[in-house]
Amino acid sequence: MAWTRDAMLALDARDPVAASRDAFDLPPGVIYLDGNSLGALPRATRARLAQVVDREWGVDLIRSWNSADWITLPTRVGDLIAPLIGADAGEVIAADSTSANLFKLAAGAVTMQRRQNAGQGRRVILSEPGNFPTDLYVMQGLADLLGDVELRTVPAEGLADALTPDVALLLLTHVHYKTGRVHDMAALTAKAHAVGALALWDLSHSAGALAVDLNGCGADLAVGCGYKYLNGGPGAPAFLFVARRHQDALHPPLSGWMGHAAPFAFGDDYQPAPGILRHLCGTPPVIGLSALEEGVKVMAGADRDALFAKSRRLGDLFLELVDQRLGAHGFQVLCPRDSARRGSQVSLGHDQGYAIVQALIERGVIGDFRAPEVLRFGFAPLYIRYVDIWDAVDHLADIMETGLWREARFHERAAVT
Amino acid sequence: MAWTRDAMLALDARDPVAASRDAFDLPPGVIYLDGNSLGALPRATRARLAQVVDREWGVDLIRSWNSADWITLPTRVGDLIAPLIGADAGEVIAADSTSANLFKLAAGAVTMQRRQNAGQGRRVILSEPGNFPTDLYVMQGLADLLGDVELRTVPAEGLADALTPDVALLLLTHVHYKTGRVHDMAALTAKAHAVGALALWDLSHSAGALAVDLNGCGADLAVGCGYKYLNGGPGAPAFLFVARRHQDALHPPLSGWMGHAAPFAFGDDYQPAPGILRHLCGTPPVIGLSALEEGVKVMAGADRDALFAKSRRLGDLFLELVDQRLGAHGFQVLCPRDSARRGSQVSLGHDQGYAIVQALIERGVIGDFRAPEVLRFGFAPLYIRYVDIWDAVDHLADIMETGLWREARFHERAAVT
Repeated sequence: MAWTRDAMLALDARDPVAASRDAFDLPPGVIYLDGNSLGALPRATRARLAQVVDREWGVDLIRSWNSADWITLPTRVGDLIAPLIGADAGEVIAADSTSANLFKLAAGAVTMQRRQNAGQGRRVILSEPGNFPTDLYVMQGLADLLGDVELRTVPAEGLADALTPDVALLLLTHVHYKTGRVHDMAALTAKAHAVGALALWDLSHSAGALAVDLNGCGADLAVGCGYKYLNGGPGAPAFLFVARRHQDALHPPLSGWMGHAAPFAFGDDYQPAPGILRHLCGTPPVIGLSALEEGVKVMAGADRDALFAKSRRLGDLFLELVDQRLGAHGFQVLCPRDSARRGSQVSLGHDQGYAIVQALIERGVIGDFRAPEVLRFGFAPLYIRYVDIWDAVDHLADIMETGLWREARFHERAAVT
Repeated sequence: MAWTRDAMLALDARDPVAASRDAFDLPPGVIYLDGNSLGALPRATRARLAQVVDREWGVDLIRSWNSADWITLPTRVGDLIAPLIGADAGEVIAADSTSANLFKLAAGAVTMQRRQNAGQGRRVILSEPGNFPTDLYVMQGLADLLGDVELRTVPAEGLADALTPDVALLLLTHVHYKTGRVHDMAALTAKAHAVGALALWDLSHSAGALAVDLNGCGADLAVGCGYKYLNGGPGAPAFLFVARRHQDALHPPLSGWMGHAAPFAFGDDYQPAPGILRHLCGTPPVIGLSALEEGVKVMAGADRDALFAKSRRLGDLFLELVDQRLGAHGFQVLCPRDSARRGSQVSLGHDQGYAIVQALIERGVIGDFRAPEVLRFGFAPLYIRYVDIWDAVDHLADIMETGLWREARFHERAAVT
């Protein structure tokens, strides 16, 4: 059956999470398929930030650390994120950036392994080529710093076999930023454990986009991003997860005062706080955490099963429409067609990808481009409608049929995933 | 001569930087002597954040990385801070927290020393007991992580002698957070260099409070706080300085994608960006950096010489008034009396310090308390008036004379310096 725009409108009319779109301020005339890069602005965030800035900072000043409960923001936001990723309360904290959190957990993991497996030569961090760059870069920096640690990258299909007894840590991004491919978290974590390695999962493109079950998979550690599907705002604080069973043994290498057992005793000797709190480092970024809390609240208030089912359906329909309308125009499907193996995005390949993305942006259809030839379209299920999928593909078909993409203005663009 | 309130009003009338107070939103009825802990809200920050949130994030979304120039915020803010601390453009960047930046620079410094002095056994980080806790804690974490590095603490008066050839890095806080004592940056840096060590200065209580001349002192590295005298808001991003001569040789241990030479090429191999940019790690916190930019702009627009002269005068007058009015009440002066040796704060000791600070806060005079018995009063020269000093000491005298401090409500208070 060929899809129609009316059929999409009918799907929207029946969508059990359609109302969550009303929680966002979305600019008119824009179809925003880049929520996997920067999530949209929740309406509640404006009022919250006015409250934080005008009243809490401006009037109550230093007293707000207590009176406005600034001091518990990192754990409060962490506990809100926890159910989205299959974690328990007390296992997640919002802090620093994804990159810094990768360093913190990987450094903590390899030194914990070193202590617990003295002399066993467990010194490899295993990842895959083409992982999101910061994951690889941060591990290269850690390896350079420690000297006795090696980053080894093996293509996805060889990862299971590459889990050998010299591996201390498996580090993978759950949903690939470029292709949208989902790793089998349960199987790879189990395989890692079988050889004595720990598994650290980067959930940047997962949290808030699809069902994640860290504890169900036995995951050890995880990090993730606050500014994509969690709608925390540009450069929002990130989060990290440490499974309860590791919390006492994992030492934070960035042992700042906010992770101290008694930060306001101002003693000279570091004593890690119990639980997840020790993974705080410096003073929490109050304004950013407050915005992130509002973003996560929108998601926490929605029906997650319905939301993640919608994610998958949006991607499926986008691909069906690509087949139906774009067959003649040289696109490759680079993401998995099976929605169980795909994040909430569709990735297409085209040798004129950059120009095509620019032409779409000029029409208000915002996706993004990743070199050398990937067009990415992300489907934030809280605010993307079925009709948006139709309209986006309709614009794309029109641009290709008319050749209008050849006229797109080329301009340099920082592409912050 | 005994000071009077009218004499203070006369000083305010002649104050060349008095007008800078108008740049702030200060709550009525409050004398805010805690700007050394959390700076006040600049009026311009509200409008700026509304612009960033409503327009740049809400409407322009991902495009704002270019159109609103989000991508250059870290270097732009760094270049605004540079002249406040005697650094050149391109030597300062705003990023992460003070604690994280301490780790980044200290780890970079000891590994640079290791490479450049192979086999010389230079493995000590020298600091002082009672330094701000996070400085010590972070170095303890770094020493634990690296194994071959030792944190050694020596009281201030012994530091020059403790600079021996096994020292890789001297780490000191320029203005002591508790006593306000200023280290001789030029002399200690020179002594460090004489034994082949590098000097890393924590400017958290210096930047925006007193004249700092990093390059004039030959300093190698520095970090500092955005939320105190720079008025960047609660948990604002911090900054770091790397002297130009070290920029090529210093490798960032937290080698995230934003410090890569070509972050948007998405390659697998880390290549550090040239200059100060490599010390970025994750995606910059846009909202926090925007607020910080407004805070720094207020200071950048003021006459720095007049501002820092006022800092010293405010502290001198506060001490004179303490002598004049509080002689009978058992206060000790814990800060240096010589304003050339004192940051923009006064520290008093009193065995009932906690209760006295609470009684002051109930009257709207906000200073803070540091265990076991230190009362701190900070003088942010942009918005504290001479008459505020009078009024604060007047309240303090009244509380002591009437014994009202005995009735202060005791409540737990997180004291975020």
